[in-house]
Amino acid sequence: MTDRIVLAYSGGLDTSVAIRWLGEETGAEVVAVAIDLGQYGGEASGDMEVVRQRALDCGAVESIVVEAKDEFAEGFCLPALKANALYMDRYPLVSALSRPLIVKHLAEAAKMHGATIVSHGCTGKGNDQVRFEVGIGALAPALKVIAPVRDYAWTREKAIRYAEERNLPIDVNKKSPYSIDQNVWGRAVETGFLEDIWNGPIEDVYSYTSDPSQPREADEVIISFEAGTPVAIDGQKVTVLEAIQQLNKRAGAQGIGRLDMVEDRLVGIKSREIYEAPGAIALITAHQELESVTVERDLARYKRGVDQRWGELAYDGLWYSPLKKALDAFIEEAQRPVTGDVRMTLHAGRAVPTGRRSDHGLYDFNLATYDEGDEFDQSLAKGFVDLWGLPSKIAAKRDAHL
Amino acid sequence: MTDRIVLAYSGGLDTSVAIRWLGEETGAEVVAVAIDLGQYGGEASGDMEVVRQRALDCGAVESIVVEAKDEFAEGFCLPALKANALYMDRYPLVSALSRPLIVKHLAEAAKMHGATIVSHGCTGKGNDQVRFEVGIGALAPALKVIAPVRDYAWTREKAIRYAEERNLPIDVNKKSPYSIDQNVWGRAVETGFLEDIWNGPIEDVYSYTSDPSQPREADEVIISFEAGTPVAIDGQKVTVLEAIQQLNKRAGAQGIGRLDMVEDRLVGIKSREIYEAPGAIALITAHQELESVTVERDLARYKRGVDQRWGELAYDGLWYSPLKKALDAFIEEAQRPVTGDVRMTLHAGRAVPTGRRSDHGLYDFNLATYDEGDEFDQSLAKGFVDLWGLPSKIAAKRDAHL
Amino acid sequence: MTDRIVLAYSGGLDTSVAIRWLGEETGAEVVAVAIDLGQYGGEASGDMEVVRQRALDCGAVESIVVEAKDEFAEGFCLPALKANALYMDRYPLVSALSRPLIVKHLAEAAKMHGATIVSHGCTGKGNDQVRFEVGIGALAPALKVIAPVRDYAWTREKAIRYAEERNLPIDVNKKSPYSIDQNVWGRAVETGFLEDIWNGPIEDVYSYTSDPSQPREADEVIISFEAGTPVAIDGQKVTVLEAIQQLNKRAGAQGIGRLDMVEDRLVGIKSREIYEAPGAIALITAHQELESVTVERDLARYKRGVDQRWGELAYDGLWYSPLKKALDAFIEEAQRPVTGDVRMTLHAGRAVPTGRRSDHGLYDFNLATYDEGDEFDQSLAKGFVDLWGLPSKIAAKRDAHL
Amino acid sequence: MTDRIVLAYSGGLDTSVAIRWLGEETGAEVVAVAIDLGQYGGEASGDMEVVRQRALDCGAVESIVVEAKDEFAEGFCLPALKANALYMDRYPLVSALSRPLIVKHLAEAAKMHGATIVSHGCTGKGNDQVRFEVGIGALAPALKVIAPVRDYAWTREKAIRYAEERNLPIDVNKKSPYSIDQNVWGRAVETGFLEDIWNGPIEDVYSYTSDPSQPREADEVIISFEAGTPVAIDGQKVTVLEAIQQLNKRAGAQGIGRLDMVEDRLVGIKSREIYEAPGAIALITAHQELESVTVERDLARYKRGVDQRWGELAYDGLWYSPLKKALDAFIEEAQRPVTGDVRMTLHAGRAVPTGRRSDHGLYDFNLATYDEGDEFDQSLAKGFVDLWGLPSKIAAKRDAHL
Repeated sequence: MTDRIVLAYSGGLDTSVAIRWLGEETGAEVVAVAIDLGQYGGEASGDMEVVRQRALDCGAVESIVVEAKDEFAEGFCLPALKANALYMDRYPLVSALSRPLIVKHLAEAAKMHGATIVSHGCTGKGNDQVRFEVGIGALAPALKVIAPVRDYAWTREKAIRYAEERNLPIDVNKKSPYSIDQNVWGRAVETGFLEDIWNGPIEDVYSYTSDPSQPREADEVIISFEAGTPVAIDGQKVTVLEAIQQLNKRAGAQGIGRLDMVEDRLVGIKSREIYEAPGAIALITAHQELESVTVERDLARYKRGVDQRWGELAYDGLWYSPLKKALDAFIEEAQRPVTGDVRMTLHAGRAVPTGRRSDHGLYDFNLATYDEGDEFDQSLAKGFVDLWGLPSKIAAKRDAHL
Repeated sequence: MTDRIVLAYSGGLDTSVAIRWLGEETGAEVVAVAIDLGQYGGEASGDMEVVRQRALDCGAVESIVVEAKDEFAEGFCLPALKANALYMDRYPLVSALSRPLIVKHLAEAAKMHGATIVSHGCTGKGNDQVRFEVGIGALAPALKVIAPVRDYAWTREKAIRYAEERNLPIDVNKKSPYSIDQNVWGRAVETGFLEDIWNGPIEDVYSYTSDPSQPREADEVIISFEAGTPVAIDGQKVTVLEAIQQLNKRAGAQGIGRLDMVEDRLVGIKSREIYEAPGAIALITAHQELESVTVERDLARYKRGVDQRWGELAYDGLWYSPLKKALDAFIEEAQRPVTGDVRMTLHAGRAVPTGRRSDHGLYDFNLATYDEGDEFDQSLAKGFVDLWGLPSKIAAKRDAHL
Repeated sequence: MTDRIVLAYSGGLDTSVAIRWLGEETGAEVVAVAIDLGQYGGEASGDMEVVRQRALDCGAVESIVVEAKDEFAEGFCLPALKANALYMDRYPLVSALSRPLIVKHLAEAAKMHGATIVSHGCTGKGNDQVRFEVGIGALAPALKVIAPVRDYAWTREKAIRYAEERNLPIDVNKKSPYSIDQNVWGRAVETGFLEDIWNGPIEDVYSYTSDPSQPREADEVIISFEAGTPVAIDGQKVTVLEAIQQLNKRAGAQGIGRLDMVEDRLVGIKSREIYEAPGAIALITAHQELESVTVERDLARYKRGVDQRWGELAYDGLWYSPLKKALDAFIEEAQRPVTGDVRMTLHAGRAVPTGRRSDHGLYDFNLATYDEGDEFDQSLAKGFVDLWGLPSKIAAKRDAHL
Repeated sequence: MTDRIVLAYSGGLDTSVAIRWLGEETGAEVVAVAIDLGQYGGEASGDMEVVRQRALDCGAVESIVVEAKDEFAEGFCLPALKANALYMDRYPLVSALSRPLIVKHLAEAAKMHGATIVSHGCTGKGNDQVRFEVGIGALAPALKVIAPVRDYAWTREKAIRYAEERNLPIDVNKKSPYSIDQNVWGRAVETGFLEDIWNGPIEDVYSYTSDPSQPREADEVIISFEAGTPVAIDGQKVTVLEAIQQLNKRAGAQGIGRLDMVEDRLVGIKSREIYEAPGAIALITAHQELESVTVERDLARYKRGVDQRWGELAYDGLWYSPLKKALDAFIEEAQRPVTGDVRMTLHAGRAVPTGRRSDHGLYDFNLATYDEGDEFDQSLAKGFVDLWGLPSKIAAKRDAHL
């Protein structure tokens, strides 16, 4: 029986060329798998059919489109939200979250279609190759991996020539100056002129967000959470996917969620990245705010470290690692009381919380107030302060002689 | 010889009343010590003379004003900047940084004037009592502490009555609805109507910052650092104090640095706090940006945890603790390469880095670029990816049977 | 209706005197609650009846003995075992684990008997007062606490005089030179001559363990775990309690588990403590060994920090805190694969693992062996090493100019 | 000019064969560099001359022996001691510490002798290749690396055949069943029958330590430290090297420091390792004990995490990384007060501290004692306990409704 290769198919030049080339190189049949994570626009579901057909036209024996937007939102974006996941305190892990989901569907497709090889279009200097292959190693360790761009040194020029020679149905003239990856959680852009890190981004780079410097009316939104999950916007029930999509629009319209950073890649180099993630940033901002009201101090302090490590693991391709699962268990327990509403003003690039309320809040007006009705017993403070400072005091006496 | 009390004097109602009351209650002489941390405005140095005289008018035997703005900037704000210190990821420790400096001058004044007691005006439910008394315990453990507001349950009403009865030179009618603490690093505001955490702040609360929602021209600034210390703004050399003051003006004019949060106090309660810290936020933003270019990945990841703990210690009154000193040593070593320039756009409440350059940067164009001249050897990646994921892979095989 | 006080009753001088004194001082009725945690010896269950009667003889209106050895083992010792809980890397939290269980039963007794006050015999400079009162605050926040020794400055001498005057049925002559707390997880001893930390302990201090320096035959034991829980010893099924009891005997007979340390108390001072915990130390040693075979590397590295924090929380009286619960969730997830056997030699004060086997082990002979059959692909190493070291290499080049 | 290769030369089969083979394969001249780290026994300094000559006999153009025992003790073992460095809480990093020192001398030799290549005898599945090559990358990034065993798949059999064919002066019959690496800080042993992790080690495996189960007299020792550095044993001044050597003998004679573990290698597999490190374990035990007396609580708690990370970095080949330097700065600051004496009993495999004294100790008899003279103010405790537990109490009230 002929070998089969499952290819993570984007519809773009590299993976379209790969369909034909993988067949020629290995003699195997290629099954193209495209995953809809919202990258083609909410309305433009027709696009996915174009992508599906293109794979067939390039020579795939099977071409599958998986609609996975809800699965992505619930199973990947939501855990990231609960972890307030911001790599280097900024990047909400747009591409990093999508790879383990894609891997899961590749592994399933390989099983269903009897493939022994998976293939992806990542280069050898990025993070995504790690996320793909470490994920495959965890979910389907018997599968072999071929990465044409990395392992066979494919370049854009070579791919264009190859496509032209084989008359592949790809419009090679439509060259964007940008390398883009996008899904419902956000959009990542790399490009030549931004590789000079002294250059600022230009307006042309952005697609999910309007220019925050343009004057416009502020937008006020109330986001409701239950146990860390967004469940309503302005009182209307929403799924997680709808929450992200609606906030992509509303926060995007206010220019919220633009990120421009120098990032530490797992492969050991620093790179310049531009992101847009209006919905993600608005949701994380609201979620953090509600946590500040509902999560106890020591837990909140410790959770910052857990959140950071969670983000590093997701970034580093270790989604399916044992440590990730144990951190998830910690975070899930910590989310139990994160229920309530956050009111935010969206305006001029900023999502600013202005109010929060929760039946499970730990803010106690009667303990906090300086007005009448104060129930805090100040006579306890003296003893607390003295014993709190005792180790420092003893050490300071000693250090006077050191 | 008559006992002497050194009082941390602010010039306000509580500590003015305390001068007279401490004398009556204890029979001791009161030495008032006021510290100029920039809280009275840069130009208005005349104010401090008013404060000084008022203490004498209230009955102090000595009244001292210490000009400590530069000392505060260099010795307290700068370490916080190097630590990117933001308690709960937000609050730049405005009041928390000033207390250990005040304590230092109180201890010195006590020694010089032969005092055996120190006194402060803090309540028993706030953080500042801890910072004062733990600091005193470390620097002058023999001193006794009297905190009239906390230990003798002084209220505002009682203080006003007392002032009127004794005819103290205090204008008790000039009642602000806000409780305010401010210095060159920022400004903290608490007030009754904000104790309902669903209420948003009103424009009236703010003093260091303009309304960010008002349209205005953006301001572009270049901040230069040497080993983590800001040394120039737009190419003009500055002291640390000048850097903060200039950015307070420029970032403040753009509405940058407003913070509205529910905060975990050390005494165990959550409280609502409003802060303004335009200079601090602008500087920390620039500093973090430069660190992302100059600090190696593993060090940067670990430093986040160190920075968080540093902020907690400063917040929790443990400035003079042994752990704080050891974290300082870590941070100082990490700052060695943090030299270079960051260009930022200040506008509409946001300080947004748009460019960074450094002779000590770790960003290597030739490794990062996808263009010609790429020096990154992609053939190394395959082996890296496989061994990086090996533990997860072995565990996943096992977990399939678990 | 007369007020009622629930007293944590040990049967000793301090709490026996407290029964009478609390009644006289407050006019309330005293309900004595003694908890059997194995402290009176496994066989000597008659002892608890003596204790129960003594409380009545001292004037208690009710005297309750709660048999809680299994509950203690399953609900308190077992989580500590899963966390390898050793405060300061050494102390297995003997007293610290018992306090939250006692608190739970005090809260239940208070509810059942309509008490509004709880009382305990702890001093004001130890950790146990914190564990009692913070626990009560969490489980029954409405209860008032009276701690006679701390709040009314009771001393041993005063208690003896009081007992003699009231003719209380206490043998005040049987004065031990040691202050002791013990349960099935271990035994804690403090005493006057050991307060000089240059003095070594003498043989007389110990009760659970034989002198490890005496020659005797070694004992070999195989301990079996399922998901982190000890389930069999030498192939015989055991409950957690039986596992601890059997190992107390066998490891105790070999002098294992003696600890002599200078400890950081929560109240801010260092103190000298002697502990014996033969079963606890043997079990933790075996458990750690099995974890090293079954827990993935990154999870194992992170779990060390979680384990440490867990131990600090238990030590610091925060058993019922939200952070403790979230750490428990992490640990429970990490224990899933900790199933298998550990063979240990018990001898001369040491429990030494000599063999380990597990169906869920991650040790893979075929990857580890240097003999034939090696399945490790060494050609992957070069790429791994080069990218692993790339950040250090780039930084080192830079630092050459720093 | 002919290329030159600097080879890390051990005198054993693999690297002896490599001398000839490298020359034949590359046409380059080979400079053999052997480093004396105490691996050949303190007395047997003659051995190193044998090693030096053998390299020449195998065809090296230069053969250098570097006496580096003191440098190793001061620059590598001492920092490990200050960090209480025990990988996985057990392994004192015997081989891991030596590699960065060897790398340093290889880089120096390469510079001096004009070499452009370095070579080592490590396999591709161990940690040492990482330590060598990441170290070289940091200290001499321009050097190329050749690792014959890994990159050219040399096996023992192939090496023996090669040596016989070329008539190299190596006694290939003297085959030890063990693979051994040793230096003054300890000794590492791997072997075939121990690759079954259920097998226990046999006495034959050990060389630095006597059988701890044999009856013998205990040995009492007093170790004195200054700022974390061992400076005297039983009152006699010693260098760091002498301290290690003397304790290797005395603790080794008591069977102290044997370790048998399943270890997480950096390359992603678990392996079985046997170590002996009598001096290291005795010194670390004493050092930890003195830290418990002299280091303040919060610093001690944090330092455990720093120590663990330090050990991981050293294990993972990141000795010359920026994070390692910053952790060193932290540790150095923490060591300032670690001055004083620890008395230990060495016996039957255990080093047991029995006394500790320090002019810089934080143990305060007057605060700790339960006897007369107690200076601890118990009236402070109530307030401390109540505020310490307040966050838990508020959360528990809330959780009752969750």
